[in-house]
Amino acid sequence: MKIDYFMGEAIKEAKKALKNNEVPIGGVLIDNYSQNIISRGHNRINSSSNAINHCELVIIIKACKKLKTKYLQNTTLFITLEPCIMCSAAISEVHIRTIYFGAYSEKSDGLEKLNSNNNFKGFSPEVYGGIQERQSKKLLKDFFLKQRK
Amino acid sequence: MKIDYFMGEAIKEAKKALKNNEVPIGGVLIDNYSQNIISRGHNRINSSSNAINHCELVIIIKACKKLKTKYLQNTTLFITLEPCIMCSAAISEVHIRTIYFGAYSEKSDGLEKLNSNNNFKGFSPEVYGGIQERQSKKLLKDFFLKQRK
Repeated sequence: MKIDYFMGEAIKEAKKALKNNEVPIGGVLIDNYSQNIISRGHNRINSSSNAINHCELVIIIKACKKLKTKYLQNTTLFITLEPCIMCSAAISEVHIRTIYFGAYSEKSDGLEKLNSNNNFKGFSPEVYGGIQERQSKKLLKDFFLKQRK
Repeated sequence: MKIDYFMGEAIKEAKKALKNNEVPIGGVLIDNYSQNIISRGHNRINSSSNAINHCELVIIIKACKKLKTKYLQNTTLFITLEPCIMCSAAISEVHIRTIYFGAYSEKSDGLEKLNSNNNFKGFSPEVYGGIQERQSKKLLKDFFLKQRK
């Protein structure tokens, strides 16, 4: 798996979000066998007028539509920010096998928390955090600094 | 709020799911001011080939599209089953103010759990469970009994 290349593609998506005045979070979903990108996307909360249109949901909806399958086993998600609790549970619902994320979420209720919660009975993916963390974090930090001005 | 009437409408939706061979879960979203139904829906995991298309997500996506707003404040959701963790977090993201649900989830990670989790920093709706519980529970029980045969 070309980890740095795919995280670079996720960062490209985050930059597209930034151009559209969305919180800069991006991602790509990879087929584990062919190593091809199945779907790519970024945060579309404002452009789609829907507060649940986080990057991960956009990518999952696109991928299910493209593959005409309700599950996405044997896929890997590269995402620039640690998924929130909604997206973590969505990732679990569709059985995405592996997650590589960039920046760690500053909230205490993200993917790593859900994965370590013994009460959670759903499917748990393998998770690797902090991949090209500095770049993804800087995009987010700059966005929020600008917003506050 | 006509609680029994709206839960009856949610149950009608659950029965539609059943006809389509989906897990029978249904719901309606109400405008708190006009008391009109904004959107209605049921579980569409199989028919849409997407394991995240739980009833609540279907209803939220329809409502945001219809109202062209990213948040759904001042709305009430009637749903036949206690929302799972993904849907609970989605409800929180769009700020649905009040939830009335029918059957309690047998999993330990649903809406009531999320609402009582002090680590969760998101918006928490008011929640009332067990509304016409017997009917919603029977629909689910009969469905799963039939599936096992």
